[in-house]
Amino acid sequence: MSVSQEDALRARLGRLIGDGLAACEAEIRHELVASPVSLIRELGEYVALAGGKRLRPILLLLAARLAGGSPARAARLGCVVELLHTATLIHDDVVDRAPLRRGRRSANACWGDDAAVLVGDHLYARCMALLVADGDLRVMDALAAAMVSMTEAEVFQLERKRAGELTEADYLRIIRQKTATFISACCRIGGLAGGIDRAGVEALAAYGEHLGIAFQIIDDSLDFEADQARLGKAVGADLREGKRTLPLIATLARAPAEERGRILAVLRHPGGDADGGPADPDVREVHRLVKLYDGVGYAVSRAAAYAAEATAQLDRFPPSEAREVLGLIADYVVHRDR
Amino acid sequence: MSVSQEDALRARLGRLIGDGLAACEAEIRHELVASPVSLIRELGEYVALAGGKRLRPILLLLAARLAGGSPARAARLGCVVELLHTATLIHDDVVDRAPLRRGRRSANACWGDDAAVLVGDHLYARCMALLVADGDLRVMDALAAAMVSMTEAEVFQLERKRAGELTEADYLRIIRQKTATFISACCRIGGLAGGIDRAGVEALAAYGEHLGIAFQIIDDSLDFEADQARLGKAVGADLREGKRTLPLIATLARAPAEERGRILAVLRHPGGDADGGPADPDVREVHRLVKLYDGVGYAVSRAAAYAAEATAQLDRFPPSEAREVLGLIADYVVHRDR
Repeated sequence: MSVSQEDALRARLGRLIGDGLAACEAEIRHELVASPVSLIRELGEYVALAGGKRLRPILLLLAARLAGGSPARAARLGCVVELLHTATLIHDDVVDRAPLRRGRRSANACWGDDAAVLVGDHLYARCMALLVADGDLRVMDALAAAMVSMTEAEVFQLERKRAGELTEADYLRIIRQKTATFISACCRIGGLAGGIDRAGVEALAAYGEHLGIAFQIIDDSLDFEADQARLGKAVGADLREGKRTLPLIATLARAPAEERGRILAVLRHPGGDADGGPADPDVREVHRLVKLYDGVGYAVSRAAAYAAEATAQLDRFPPSEAREVLGLIADYVVHRDR
Repeated sequence: MSVSQEDALRARLGRLIGDGLAACEAEIRHELVASPVSLIRELGEYVALAGGKRLRPILLLLAARLAGGSPARAARLGCVVELLHTATLIHDDVVDRAPLRRGRRSANACWGDDAAVLVGDHLYARCMALLVADGDLRVMDALAAAMVSMTEAEVFQLERKRAGELTEADYLRIIRQKTATFISACCRIGGLAGGIDRAGVEALAAYGEHLGIAFQIIDDSLDFEADQARLGKAVGADLREGKRTLPLIATLARAPAEERGRILAVLRHPGGDADGGPADPDVREVHRLVKLYDGVGYAVSRAAAYAAEATAQLDRFPPSEAREVLGLIADYVVHRDR
């Protein structure tokens, strides 16, 4: 997707849910500023206000719009899902020892693992308190189930990484549980915040699940092909961590034994520059093989199929600006370059 | 408290809430065994089944008994608070880089910080799901508020540690928010699970808060005086981490400038044996000064006052076995040796 197409999508989002998004931003700031402990304010604001895409609140607001929900409540719930997402990012970077996030130093790099673990925990707790204040057990249930699924998948991923094995089925299980379930929950919550019937809520949740899988496959593909400055993190970072993602899994399946062996050797001994600088020869060689066997092409075609499934879920709703924009987001997710 | 007194208390607890405690243990095992991911089962069971005191479920069950609540539901809620407590211990040990917990290697020492962070997060999420299944917003509110308070205090404590300063007021704020609020929530939830009036619930919550403060002061005092084998962790561990607790704060207030300076120097450059072996000379010298100025005596007298306050909260309830045992626990908390 070109920069101008992305700008056009942003402009439509602005007209459709701009007020809701602004209210959601205000809620996020309000929640972070409210803390009496300066380290919570500083670290929380640093991560939450670092220019994330706000995909989850956007989807929640659009689903609520489609379902006829209160924009004020959707904004509050949008704040909750973004803060939850922020907490997971903070902990993920501790777990991965990631030095960079969104183009600058990660929270753990700036404040230490100890502060990052604790502030992440605090944000989880704040989200739980906000959900209790909202008082809707169905919303809580959706988010609790998503968090159980996400965190279980994180541990499963670590277990597979330690075992040095990851099949395409494992990979899909992990991204479904880790990314798609949470994005699905955001769409479900938007639907619940409105007044649509159960089947409508389920269709929104299914849209979110397929969209989430597509989103994560592209995220993983960008690690091989993106423009580093635009991506905001080191290209090849997943590879340096020994993370097996779909482009690599596809390449391993397609490459002959000798080349497969070379890739596996790099995965077993990941290294490279800790500062995310130019790739070392091993990483360059793996990138060459992924290009040669079109691992990214395979991954993108899978992502496109999931995105099409997502869009198909929208057919049951009458045509509307919100439905159209949800379809555009499914397009954006596949064609984005960051 | 002598071993025989502790045994006598255990026997009375067994008669009064033994079935509830056994049901609670079964729930804890059931929750951990239920996970399809072996790393979650292993790490979770390792920490949750390592012979903790189960103080929080015990208090919840006793409060529910006093309030006339359903034992089955109290057991389920007891499982939730113990798993939440387990999650906080797992993260605390990552944050403190603690090598030992309850007499054996900590989870982070065995499985790594990454696994410990993620399994802790997973347990938080599971607790949230269990609370949603229970479906009582007042219970969720009590626990969400406690978690917000606890995690905020953890970050505040880290901030003060980095600043190298901690007054007695800071210390009390931290232990109130970190330990007492959670213990108070357990007692409140027990009360809510029964049918008593609001004032009764508040009295149980106040009992828990005072008890929690006493409990933590004694916990911190045991770091100076306990029998290491009985305590299950290295004596002097807090000191080696540079942690300022009440016996030390009292000693700093009582010692003349030259000795105060020596203590502060040790706090600024904590060291000692990482394996929790015999104390190094610096740690021994600080211990000598804490003994000389009776820092532990001061702390214990403060703890006894809080425990008396806790017991006084029970006066509003008619005499019963549950009320009596809650009073005995306040005694135990001050006189325990581990």
